[in-house]
Amino acid sequence: MRIRKQIWDEFWRLVGAADRIALVTHKAPDGDAIGSLLGLGLALKRIGKRVITACHDPVPDKFRFLPGASEVLQSPDGIAPDLLIALDSSEPARTGRFAGLINSPEIDVLSLDHHPTNTGFGLLNLVDPDASSTSELVMDALEAGGLALDESIATCLLTGIVTDTQAFRTPNVTPSLLLKAGRLMNAGAPLYKIIAGTVASISYIVLRLWSEALRGVRLEDGVIWAVEPLEMRKAIGYEEPGDGHLVHLLLSVAEAKVAAVFRMERAGEVEVSLRARPGYNVASVAREFGGGGHILAAGATVPGSLDEVVARVLPLLKAEARREI
Amino acid sequence: MRIRKQIWDEFWRLVGAADRIALVTHKAPDGDAIGSLLGLGLALKRIGKRVITACHDPVPDKFRFLPGASEVLQSPDGIAPDLLIALDSSEPARTGRFAGLINSPEIDVLSLDHHPTNTGFGLLNLVDPDASSTSELVMDALEAGGLALDESIATCLLTGIVTDTQAFRTPNVTPSLLLKAGRLMNAGAPLYKIIAGTVASISYIVLRLWSEALRGVRLEDGVIWAVEPLEMRKAIGYEEPGDGHLVHLLLSVAEAKVAAVFRMERAGEVEVSLRARPGYNVASVAREFGGGGHILAAGATVPGSLDEVVARVLPLLKAEARREI
Repeated sequence: MRIRKQIWDEFWRLVGAADRIALVTHKAPDGDAIGSLLGLGLALKRIGKRVITACHDPVPDKFRFLPGASEVLQSPDGIAPDLLIALDSSEPARTGRFAGLINSPEIDVLSLDHHPTNTGFGLLNLVDPDASSTSELVMDALEAGGLALDESIATCLLTGIVTDTQAFRTPNVTPSLLLKAGRLMNAGAPLYKIIAGTVASISYIVLRLWSEALRGVRLEDGVIWAVEPLEMRKAIGYEEPGDGHLVHLLLSVAEAKVAAVFRMERAGEVEVSLRARPGYNVASVAREFGGGGHILAAGATVPGSLDEVVARVLPLLKAEARREI
Repeated sequence: MRIRKQIWDEFWRLVGAADRIALVTHKAPDGDAIGSLLGLGLALKRIGKRVITACHDPVPDKFRFLPGASEVLQSPDGIAPDLLIALDSSEPARTGRFAGLINSPEIDVLSLDHHPTNTGFGLLNLVDPDASSTSELVMDALEAGGLALDESIATCLLTGIVTDTQAFRTPNVTPSLLLKAGRLMNAGAPLYKIIAGTVASISYIVLRLWSEALRGVRLEDGVIWAVEPLEMRKAIGYEEPGDGHLVHLLLSVAEAKVAAVFRMERAGEVEVSLRARPGYNVASVAREFGGGGHILAAGATVPGSLDEVVARVLPLLKAEARREI
């Protein structure tokens, strides 16, 4: 569902009437959260608005090259905007310590988002679940308002699109998105640099973690999985949370319908990362173990040893991979 | 260097004057070889030409879904075209057993290619080293000639573009390529299916080859490399030529400027696959060992044992990675 022209007109009418505008994105920000925040922020500054950009957590290192990244505030103290625009956030709580500001009756709030779970908490909700990313939606907003792109804005927005689509690899990439990406490049956004610095880049220590974990990789009945014991992670010196996205690599195996990585970050409990090909559902499996997520990407934290947890989760994954689709 | 309109006009004049047209691509065909072959073949049939498509080797399984894939001939016997168009082939020998036909004085030959090493063996050489792929060049040709795209043609051409650019991840992706890809999708080419079936898909046996090879991965002075001994490939049962694209994974490591995979497919010689980040040049290194290729993607076959060849090639790679860029 594309957003109608009249709704964009209303968006620009509200923006036009405001002087001080606060833009807020969700906590634990990804590339789309930061890209849409900074891209819209730069565009509104360009038309003379007093803009602040804000996020509960710091901008991750890999997005600090983006213009405006160093100006993102982490605290709501002293912020009293005429208008607040929440980006990429399905509900106020996703913005962490900015939820109070969003819920304040004195502040007009607009929600710009592509999550189908958006609760419609804004005065105006510009929610398009068919958009690849909130950054794509910001581009739609700028084009609807007749605002020109420049290199800085285009770089922010293309970063959001690239990171949310794994560089055009997700099923929701449309012809229109490719045309928009072409226009962003024409405005100066460096596609190769953005991809090389985000979705196509892993650190050497991640490669070594993968190497160790792949020694025990197994494929049975359409389920591919690997384990990352605590000792493995320690021996390599890998101290980041997460599986280093090994589960993405596993799901790229043609014979796999469902992929899992079981990793131990602390003794006594196992983090389970699950991914599925379109047609399968790992959110339901994650929920059985108290976890959650999307249909194709979910996870859970399960008490027990690696062997115990694998033995409990694997039969459910195999049952899912056996389903007729 | 884009190909000038007059040159395309001359191309279409020669095509227009011919009735029986043979299209030939290079041996050991990749997605661009097959995509450009079949895409141009379908387009020429559509305008009433009698077309045969040919390749020294069979169409690889992963490209057999392309329309026309089952009609590709592997032998030049009995072929006597008015016009032969060599696709994606830098010299006649790249077409294997079709080289004789290309060199025959009775047959007019056109070369459509994006390799900078193209020797200019055609009566007319439509060579654009700035094109991402020969499939992109075929699209340029069709647009210059005013031929419409349809779903079949678009699917072939987008497959060539996707495989040669790793789905838009290479440095030579231009705004214009994204716009073309958008038009191919608009004509019906299924981008997600193409990506999922080609560049985003590896077989389980490839993952196990990577797993074994990664056990010996090394990173020194900006050069990352791994080896695939004959015994390793045999123990896994890996019988395909090539390194299973491990070299792409290696170059995705943030700390690497140059990546190499040394593999032994036959005793006594080592296949060296080289990749570089923009600014570095591995074609020059490949040429030192009698190989060739593009600046950022090159290779060579070097006599000797794995240890010997690594010892000879590595210092040149390290010198390259040390260059100021």
